[in-house]
Amino acid sequence: MASPEIEALTQALARLPGLGPRSARRAVLHLLKKREAALTPLLHALERVNERLTSCSTCGNVDTTDPCAVCADPRRDTRMLCVVEEVADLWALDRSRLFPGRYHVLGGRLSALEGVRPEDLSIDALVSRVAAGGIDEVVLATNATLEGQTTAHYVADRLEALPVRLTQLAHGVPVGGELDYLDEGTLAQALRARRPVA
Amino acid sequence: MASPEIEALTQALARLPGLGPRSARRAVLHLLKKREAALTPLLHALERVNERLTSCSTCGNVDTTDPCAVCADPRRDTRMLCVVEEVADLWALDRSRLFPGRYHVLGGRLSALEGVRPEDLSIDALVSRVAAGGIDEVVLATNATLEGQTTAHYVADRLEALPVRLTQLAHGVPVGGELDYLDEGTLAQALRARRPVA
Ligand SMILES: [Zn+2]
Ligand SMILES: [Zn+2]
Repeated sequence: MASPEIEALTQALARLPGLGPRSARRAVLHLLKKREAALTPLLHALERVNERLTSCSTCGNVDTTDPCAVCADPRRDTRMLCVVEEVADLWALDRSRLFPGRYHVLGGRLSALEGVRPEDLSIDALVSRVAAGGIDEVVLATNATLEGQTTAHYVADRLEALPVRLTQLAHGVPVGGELDYLDEGTLAQALRARRPVA
Repeated sequence: MASPEIEALTQALARLPGLGPRSARRAVLHLLKKREAALTPLLHALERVNERLTSCSTCGNVDTTDPCAVCADPRRDTRMLCVVEEVADLWALDRSRLFPGRYHVLGGRLSALEGVRPEDLSIDALVSRVAAGGIDEVVLATNATLEGQTTAHYVADRLEALPVRLTQLAHGVPVGGELDYLDEGTLAQALRARRPVA
């Protein structure tokens, strides 16, 4: 039994992905016991992010600056653009600095079932961005789901007339993946895209 | 790549027990995308806790009020006192309302190795509290470790002359086990079968 304030904090933490009620309680206890080392830094970090949180008007990333840190980074190859469904995908790709260019977040995927139409996604903005020039290659990195691929096809159609190279992520056996555990779709794709042994 | 503010938030979250860098990033992304539903409530909960955080001058619990919510609860059986090492143990026992009485947090365990002596723990305060009267039973619920049991023996010696029944948690708490990590069933068993200190 704790005060309502501590209960509220526990519940706010328990709603984060990856934290359940049990680990949230442990986290709260840690925050209470390590006020200077844990609670204060977390509070200040949240305050600062909350004050400045914005959406990048160029790429759709969420950040504390507009343009976001990726778009503002002068070391990025501005001639390459990677199109993703969600901010989470941008972060996943960018985490390991695999992609040297910039991004464009669509904000979802086309879905007849969920009633998501092209005008619900940031597709017009993408077309304008590419039409403005200076981009050589657009990598369509939507998810390898039916809806993700439908979206990629639609985006490809919209960009077709523009002078850019359109590419997409290779499909195949994930590194470390065991054939036995892969679905048939992945196996079929991997087999179709087989390449000469080096 | 994110702004320094978002990096700071990710790092503050990653330092919480149960969250690594990967889940911290996922949690931050969730906070940024669900500003109203996740970031704002967490920020306000932290602010409120930070403003009011205190230590209970009666039992040593951490809470936003002094006396804490447990000590202030009029439904508690004031004749029963449960002695624990850490606030985490109080929370673990109290979570499932297993114990109807109040608590006393020692603030650690006696340890020759770590140089923790009786005067480093809240033992004098415990003796005063029991000597003040009104308490029939003191449950010694230190951990079932060597140091926890040494501490229990020392506390039992200090309370021996006072007119209270001393009990301890039954076996059922695995040797070497820390209360904070036990399931509720084990805790319930151990509490139900508590026995007089030999
Ligand atoms: Zn951006
Ligand atoms: Zn208290």
